[in-house]
Amino acid sequence: MSIKLGPNRYGKAETRLVHVVRDGPVHHIKDINVSTSLSGDMEAAHLTGDNAAVLPTDTQKNTAYAFARKHGVGQIEEFALLLARHFVRSQPTIHHARVEIEEYAWSRGGPHSFVREGGEVRTCVVHHDREGGDTVVSGLKDLVVLNSTGSEFHGYIVDEYTTLPPATDRILATAVTARWRHAGETVSYGKSYEQVRQCLLDAFAGTHSLSLQQTLYAMGERALAACPEIGEVRLAMPNKHHFLVDLSPFGLDNDNEVYFAADRPYGLIEGGVLRDDAPDAGFAWE
Amino acid sequence: MSIKLGPNRYGKAETRLVHVVRDGPVHHIKDINVSTSLSGDMEAAHLTGDNAAVLPTDTQKNTAYAFARKHGVGQIEEFALLLARHFVRSQPTIHHARVEIEEYAWSRGGPHSFVREGGEVRTCVVHHDREGGDTVVSGLKDLVVLNSTGSEFHGYIVDEYTTLPPATDRILATAVTARWRHAGETVSYGKSYEQVRQCLLDAFAGTHSLSLQQTLYAMGERALAACPEIGEVRLAMPNKHHFLVDLSPFGLDNDNEVYFAADRPYGLIEGGVLRDDAPDAGFAWE
Amino acid sequence: MSIKLGPNRYGKAETRLVHVVRDGPVHHIKDINVSTSLSGDMEAAHLTGDNAAVLPTDTQKNTAYAFARKHGVGQIEEFALLLARHFVRSQPTIHHARVEIEEYAWSRGGPHSFVREGGEVRTCVVHHDREGGDTVVSGLKDLVVLNSTGSEFHGYIVDEYTTLPPATDRILATAVTARWRHAGETVSYGKSYEQVRQCLLDAFAGTHSLSLQQTLYAMGERALAACPEIGEVRLAMPNKHHFLVDLSPFGLDNDNEVYFAADRPYGLIEGGVLRDDAPDAGFAWE
Amino acid sequence: MSIKLGPNRYGKAETRLVHVVRDGPVHHIKDINVSTSLSGDMEAAHLTGDNAAVLPTDTQKNTAYAFARKHGVGQIEEFALLLARHFVRSQPTIHHARVEIEEYAWSRGGPHSFVREGGEVRTCVVHHDREGGDTVVSGLKDLVVLNSTGSEFHGYIVDEYTTLPPATDRILATAVTARWRHAGETVSYGKSYEQVRQCLLDAFAGTHSLSLQQTLYAMGERALAACPEIGEVRLAMPNKHHFLVDLSPFGLDNDNEVYFAADRPYGLIEGGVLRDDAPDAGFAWE
Repeated sequence: MSIKLGPNRYGKAETRLVHVVRDGPVHHIKDINVSTSLSGDMEAAHLTGDNAAVLPTDTQKNTAYAFARKHGVGQIEEFALLLARHFVRSQPTIHHARVEIEEYAWSRGGPHSFVREGGEVRTCVVHHDREGGDTVVSGLKDLVVLNSTGSEFHGYIVDEYTTLPPATDRILATAVTARWRHAGETVSYGKSYEQVRQCLLDAFAGTHSLSLQQTLYAMGERALAACPEIGEVRLAMPNKHHFLVDLSPFGLDNDNEVYFAADRPYGLIEGGVLRDDAPDAGFAWE
Repeated sequence: MSIKLGPNRYGKAETRLVHVVRDGPVHHIKDINVSTSLSGDMEAAHLTGDNAAVLPTDTQKNTAYAFARKHGVGQIEEFALLLARHFVRSQPTIHHARVEIEEYAWSRGGPHSFVREGGEVRTCVVHHDREGGDTVVSGLKDLVVLNSTGSEFHGYIVDEYTTLPPATDRILATAVTARWRHAGETVSYGKSYEQVRQCLLDAFAGTHSLSLQQTLYAMGERALAACPEIGEVRLAMPNKHHFLVDLSPFGLDNDNEVYFAADRPYGLIEGGVLRDDAPDAGFAWE
Repeated sequence: MSIKLGPNRYGKAETRLVHVVRDGPVHHIKDINVSTSLSGDMEAAHLTGDNAAVLPTDTQKNTAYAFARKHGVGQIEEFALLLARHFVRSQPTIHHARVEIEEYAWSRGGPHSFVREGGEVRTCVVHHDREGGDTVVSGLKDLVVLNSTGSEFHGYIVDEYTTLPPATDRILATAVTARWRHAGETVSYGKSYEQVRQCLLDAFAGTHSLSLQQTLYAMGERALAACPEIGEVRLAMPNKHHFLVDLSPFGLDNDNEVYFAADRPYGLIEGGVLRDDAPDAGFAWE
Repeated sequence: MSIKLGPNRYGKAETRLVHVVRDGPVHHIKDINVSTSLSGDMEAAHLTGDNAAVLPTDTQKNTAYAFARKHGVGQIEEFALLLARHFVRSQPTIHHARVEIEEYAWSRGGPHSFVREGGEVRTCVVHHDREGGDTVVSGLKDLVVLNSTGSEFHGYIVDEYTTLPPATDRILATAVTARWRHAGETVSYGKSYEQVRQCLLDAFAGTHSLSLQQTLYAMGERALAACPEIGEVRLAMPNKHHFLVDLSPFGLDNDNEVYFAADRPYGLIEGGVLRDDAPDAGFAWE
C-alpha cells in the first residue's frame, strides 16, 4: 500500500480590511473581507514539514494590507486579481492562487460618516494559474426577496409519501446566492455588478412562477441576455417557506393574509444557466 | 430552611409572523417576530405541576396570529399593547404581560415584490400590568455606523497597565442598540421612530468625539431634545475597533488609510440619558 | 427641560485568554472569555469628553492578561473578584466593577494535547462596589438535556384561541441557562459548581414533569437543598419543542417514536428559586 | 446566442429528526439533520414550470420521517443510502440522489434522560446514481483540538512583506473538518467512525509539528494506514491563532503561558491524502 498527497491549498482567511480615501473633507470607504489560498510545490511541507516552498499565511495577510495602501481598493475583482497574480508571479513555488473577497456596502450619513446597509453582500472569487491564466466569478449573497403573490406549485409527482396540496397562490421567498462567471476580463466590474443584480431582481419580481426552478432559470437567463460579458450564472435559492396559518378554529378565514415564516427544513434549489458557447469553466468554480 | 419561588414568567418566544395587506394589485407586508411573556398566579404550576392558572404558550402563539387577522399589524408598539392587554384582561390568573416585537424592514421591488433591507431591526418592549398599567419602550438594534475622522481619545488615566497611545484622529465605529421609553402613549409610533432614528444618526455624524461616551450622550440628548414624547433613552454601543495597520516594515506610510477591523475584544459603552422630570420607569426596562 | 445622565458603565468585552500551566511535560490549560465593566465618576466623560476619570478599556484588557501571568487563572469566580477589586481599589474614580467570565472546558488527549468538550459553558458574574462589597453569581449555559418520556402537560386554561391537545407523554427538551448566587464567599467554587450542575441534571432526569415550570422549580430546589453555600438560583429554560410526526397518511402509526425537532417559536420558562432567609441580592443580578 | 440549463439539483435541506427506541424502560435516541437533493429530467421544470418530473421537497421530508418509522435510524450512512436509493429507484425521472446527514451525540443521564454532548458533529454524504451506483463519504466537523507545545514553524519563504518571526514553540489549535471516502460498502460504519476519529486525534496529539500541513498529512495517513475500508481522507483545518501576549511593558516575562486567542483572520489549511490505488472518486465529493 502506498499513500500520497492529494489536492491541497492553504492561505489566510477573512482578513478584514477597511480602506479610507480622503477626497478633501469628503471621505470614501471600502469594507472588505479577503481570503487568499495558494497551491504549488507543497509535497515537502506535508510530508516532512520542510517549509521552504511555503509563503506564510501571515505574509499573505500583510500583502493584502500593503497592496491596499499601494494600489487602493477599487473593484473587488481587480484587487483580487492583483493579489492572485502577485503571489504566483513573485514565488516560483506557488503555481496557483485563489482569492475570494466579500464587500460590505455602506451608505453616506455625512462627509465622513457612514451607515452600513445590511442586505446583500457582494462577492468575488478569482483564480490565477501559472499555466491556465485567470478566471473571474462575481456574485452576491444574502439578497432576501419575497413575492406575496404570483407563485403556484402543482402538477408534481404524487407518490405514497405525498401530503402537500397543490397551490395556486403562495408566497415565494428566498435568500439569493448568485455567482456569475465572466467570459474574459470585464471592463467595468462595478457597472456589471449593478446590471446583473438588477436583472436578478427584475426577473424575480416579474416572473409568474410555477416553480422556484422556473424563477431561478428566468433570473439566470435575464442576466445572460442583458450582460454579454458573462457566460454562466449559478444560483442557490432556499425556498423560505411561508405557511398560511389555519385560523378556522377561531372562526376566522385567512385569505393569504397571515403567514408563519418557518426556519427549517427549507427547500433548496440550485442550478446553473449558461451560454451554449461559454468558454470552458476550468477551475473557475473551485 | 425554607425554599420558595422567586420572580418568574413564561411565554412563547419568537413567533415569526408575516402579514400581507392587499391594496388591489399593490401589496404591503409586515414581517415581525413576537415574544410574549406572562406572570401571575404561578405558584401551583411550579410547586405541584397544577396548570389551572397557565395559559399555554401555544395559545399565546395562536392569539398573535388571530389578532393579526382581526386587527392587522400596524405599529409594533400598538400590536404589542393589544396582545399584552388581552392576556391580562381575559385571564384572571394573569397579572402581568410583557410583549417584545422585532420588525424587519422590506423595500418595494414591484407591486407585490419585496427586498429585505438588512441594516437595523426595529424593536419594542411593552408591559401591561393589572395594577401598574402600561409602559412602552421603542428601539432599534444592529444600526452599524462609522466615522472615518472626527474622533479623538486622550487624557485618560495612565496606570502601570497602560500601553494605549493617545489618539487625535481615529475611526469611530459601533453597532447601535438604542431603546427609548415613551412618557405616555404616543400618537404616532411610526413617526416617532423615524425621528428618534434620525436624531441618533445626526448626532453620531455631527459630534466631534473625544470619547465614545460623549457621542453616546449626545445621541441620547439629541433624541430627547427633539422628541417630547420620550422621557429616557438607553444606548449600548460596542466600540468596534479599527486598528491602523503598521506598514512601515514595507517602507509604506499609513496616514489613516488602511485599517484592520477587529472582532474581539471590543469596548462596550452602555448608558442612559433622561429628563429630570421623566416619570418613574417602573417595570419598563425589565 | 433639563436632561441628565442615567445609569452607565463601560468596559472591555470578550477578552479571549488562554492560560497554560506546565507541570513538567504535563500541561494544563484554562480557556476563558473575560468581560469587565466599570462605573464611577463618568459625568465629565459623557458631557464634555473629559476622560480624566476613565481607565481605558484597552488597559482593562491588559490587566486581565497581566493578572493571568501574575496570579494564574484558578476558579473563574476568584479571578473575576481579583480583577474587580483591583479596578475599584486602584482608581479613586472607579466605584463599581462588574466582571463576567465564561470558561470553555477541554478534556485531555495527551500530556500537552487537548480536545474541546463542547456542551455547556461555565459562567460567572461578580461585582465589587466601593460601599457594597462583593457579590458572586456562578452559572452555566447551553446545557442541552432531553427526557424521552415522563413529561405530561394538561389541565391548563382553555380559551377561544386554544388548539393544543392535552399531552400525557411527550418529549421534554431544553437548553438550560442557570445562575446561582452565593450567600457569601464560597470556599471551593469548583466543587460547588460540580455539585450544583449534578443537582440540576439529577432533578431534570428524576422529575416526572407535569409542566416545565415544575421541572424548573425542582431543579432549583434540589441545588439549594444540597448546597448551603448558595442562596438563590435563577433558571431560563426554552421549551425546545419536539412534535410527533403524523405518519397516518402513510398507513403508519407513530407511538412516540419519530419526532420533528422545531427551532422557532419555542416556549421560554424563566424563574427563580430562593431561600426564605437569603440575603438581599443588591446588584448581584445586574 | 443560445442559453441553456446547466448542472442543477433540488431538495429538502435540514429536516430535523429525532428517533426514540424504547428498550423497555431504557430508551435510546438518534438526533439527526437530513438534507436530500435530487437531479434528473428537470429541463421542463426550469424552462416552463412543468413539474411533472418533480418529486416535491415536501415529499422528500415526509419520506425521511416515514423511513425512520419503517426502518429505524441505524448508522447514518445506511439511512442515507436507503433514502438515496429509494428516490432514484421509485421515480423514473430522478437519476441521481445525494443525501447528507449530520448526527448530534447525546450521552445518557438516566434510563430515558439524555445530555447533548456538544463537541464534534458526525457527518455523511452519500450519492446514488442510476448508472454510477453508490458513493459513501463519512466525516466529522467542529472537532476542536489544541497542542500547548510540540509545534514549530520556520524555514519558510521570506519576502518583502514578511514580518512573522520563526517559531520554535507555539500553540497549535484547530477545528477539524474531516471527510473520508469509503472504498466500497463498509461493514460497520459505526466502528469505522470511531477508529478514524481516534486516528485523527492520536496523530494530532502525537505529531511533533513543523507545519500545520505536516500535521494534516499525518492525520490522514494514520487513518488510511489503520482503516483499509477507506481510500481517501480530506481535511480542512483552520489555524486558530493563539498569540503570546507581550507582557514586557508591565515588567513581566511570558514564557508560553498567557495567550490571546484570535478570531479572524485565521490560516486555513486544506488537503487530501489518498491511496495510490484508491478507486476513482466520481461524484463522491460533490
